Amino acid sequence: MDLNFYMPTKVIMGRGCITKQAALLKEYGTRALIVTGMNSAKTNGSLQDVTEALQGQGIAYDLFDRVMANPTVACVYEGAAYAREKQSDFIIGIGGGSPMDAAKAIALLAVQDIPEEEVFLGKFAQQALPLVLVPTTAGTGSEVTPYAILTNTAGQTKTSIASPAAFPKLALLDAQYMKALSMEVTINTAIDALSHAIEGMLSVRATRISDSIARQSIQAIVPSLVTLSPDYNKPASEIPAQVREMLLYGSMLAGVVISHTGTTAVHSMGYSLTYFKNIDHGRANGLLLPSFLRFVMKKEAAVVNQILSAMSFSSLDDLEALFLRLLGERERITVQDVEKYAGIAIKAKNIMNSKVVPEREDLIRMYERSLNIV
Amino acid sequence: MDLNFYMPTKVIMGRGCITKQAALLKEYGTRALIVTGMNSAKTNGSLQDVTEALQGQGIAYDLFDRVMANPTVACVYEGAAYAREKQSDFIIGIGGGSPMDAAKAIALLAVQDIPEEEVFLGKFAQQALPLVLVPTTAGTGSEVTPYAILTNTAGQTKTSIASPAAFPKLALLDAQYMKALSMEVTINTAIDALSHAIEGMLSVRATRISDSIARQSIQAIVPSLVTLSPDYNKPASEIPAQVREMLLYGSMLAGVVISHTGTTAVHSMGYSLTYFKNIDHGRANGLLLPSFLRFVMKKEAAVVNQILSAMSFSSLDDLEALFLRLLGERERITVQDVEKYAGIAIKAKNIMNSKVVPEREDLIRMYERSLNIV
Repeated sequence: MDLNFYMPTKVIMGRGCITKQAALLKEYGTRALIVTGMNSAKTNGSLQDVTEALQGQGIAYDLFDRVMANPTVACVYEGAAYAREKQSDFIIGIGGGSPMDAAKAIALLAVQDIPEEEVFLGKFAQQALPLVLVPTTAGTGSEVTPYAILTNTAGQTKTSIASPAAFPKLALLDAQYMKALSMEVTINTAIDALSHAIEGMLSVRATRISDSIARQSIQAIVPSLVTLSPDYNKPASEIPAQVREMLLYGSMLAGVVISHTGTTAVHSMGYSLTYFKNIDHGRANGLLLPSFLRFVMKKEAAVVNQILSAMSFSSLDDLEALFLRLLGERERITVQDVEKYAGIAIKAKNIMNSKVVPEREDLIRMYERSLNIV
Repeated sequence: MDLNFYMPTKVIMGRGCITKQAALLKEYGTRALIVTGMNSAKTNGSLQDVTEALQGQGIAYDLFDRVMANPTVACVYEGAAYAREKQSDFIIGIGGGSPMDAAKAIALLAVQDIPEEEVFLGKFAQQALPLVLVPTTAGTGSEVTPYAILTNTAGQTKTSIASPAAFPKLALLDAQYMKALSMEVTINTAIDALSHAIEGMLSVRATRISDSIARQSIQAIVPSLVTLSPDYNKPASEIPAQVREMLLYGSMLAGVVISHTGTTAVHSMGYSLTYFKNIDHGRANGLLLPSFLRFVMKKEAAVVNQILSAMSFSSLDDLEALFLRLLGERERITVQDVEKYAGIAIKAKNIMNSKVVPEREDLIRMYERSLNIV
């Protein structure tokens, strides 16, 4: 039995954990740079909890709140320059995947000089500013991974940068910030997390330990996901606290899984839907996942059956019905779009990571099955 | 849901992993101190694999091979002095719990000045030499914990010292070194590991995540344990490689569990059997565990039933029958011994860690039920 496990982030989860664990922040220095998006951290209470915790500990802080959805390389270089200017000792990222990934890239780039055009070559020295992450969605799992996903304009896709130095030192998980999310974001991010856990089991790098964490994650997410209303206008504050907590717990575990396994063809295919069609990342994965599972089922039924068993589903029809209910009408794309996206996805590095590697024709069929072709 | 997770050790498991991963050792310096016992590392091949890996990487090394079973404070101070004398950059501990725990204490004491009489007060600075551990038994889980258990002569027991700085940087797990163990040691250490996983679920500090790791551990250990022959004269080399691997995997997971939960009354009671009667640590836990589970069953049946379910046992009778078969005849102790041991155990810090806290009278009854009283 060959396996490996490495996840050095200290994870603390619980209601009010930022306030209760404020003293931990002193370990990382006397001046923090808070990295976040423009709005959500201000309205969901997380930014206030962080700044009060810092003030209580006598830690100075600066704010970089210009992270957009699907952050660009330019954005993280701007943040890194700001961290250097302010001589920040450590970075606190607050938000969903975009601010957390930007914070991670900023923590790396604040202490090493890499030309912007070489950021995707992955030649990072093993150093970064200490990083604390506060997820306010339950999807990306970025709080426990060494990955930062950035928009790759030259490659017309999203590309992951990774370095062991980019593992956060501390992740503080408080599900009450998720009350402020829309139902739509709650669903899309939960499906993203579920996709991580499932893709982890479909990866060639899956091991006994990553599979056991993936099953735990699936068992936390699916019973919660089935309770969610597909009415996108409903506020997520109606979701019971326990469901939010299980989603946040499950997404963290799924992050641990992909730290070890990487993602697979679902993510490779999804990036084009986000890059060209502005389809939310989690939704893109959700649209594609059932088709990929059907594709794998033909050649490696055992692993798909293990996934179904962890979900307590008897067939892929159950999963497809759930996703149909939660995701609603599928986006329209053209045959030309499909050809183009398949051409990009076939070159993605995570495509080779799948236990059953699709060819270009397989990708085309999966896109066609997953979207409305016009 | 409140929980925490922290286990920064990089774990690599697989046949030949020391040779394959030799390059990782360069991260920790240019001069290593190998800490081990007098014999086993020399006969099971692990010492040779480590020294060849070091030579291959151009890393100098010294050898401190004087760790006895149940290491004393004097022993680890001697090792720490040797590390200072040799200006070791890092420590490599090879062996069962005793050498690994000694290596951990040496890594701490080599870089901080703590008077010998204060070592159990636990006032460690957050620093230690980098530590690499190579377990050659599947029991202690020390390779993934911040604990070192030392013989406490003044307290007439064994006492744990702990510091986050004492987490190993790297654990290299190769089950083939376990071929050289006796069947008796294989059984005793496996029962120790199982006891860790079970006690983790019985701890007040158990969380959803520690319980899920504990169940994984139990599911790896029990199906392997039931295949072991109780004939102590048989060599462990007859055990199939896969069984050895599952035991090593399960004991590592159980180490992750107790890193989060600590141990409970079973360990508190067991230490006296080891200190005064020289009963092997794992065997001591195995003698006591069924009685403790029966005690907990009366007040918290749900958690005991979860444990039984993870073991695929329908009642505690099944567990007791397995242990009876594997442990054979129980040691004789006197009523006076029992009184004395109960008096020591009731003061142990891990006794309060149990979901159902026993009183002194309960401890006496459990000792009586677990041993032959004469």
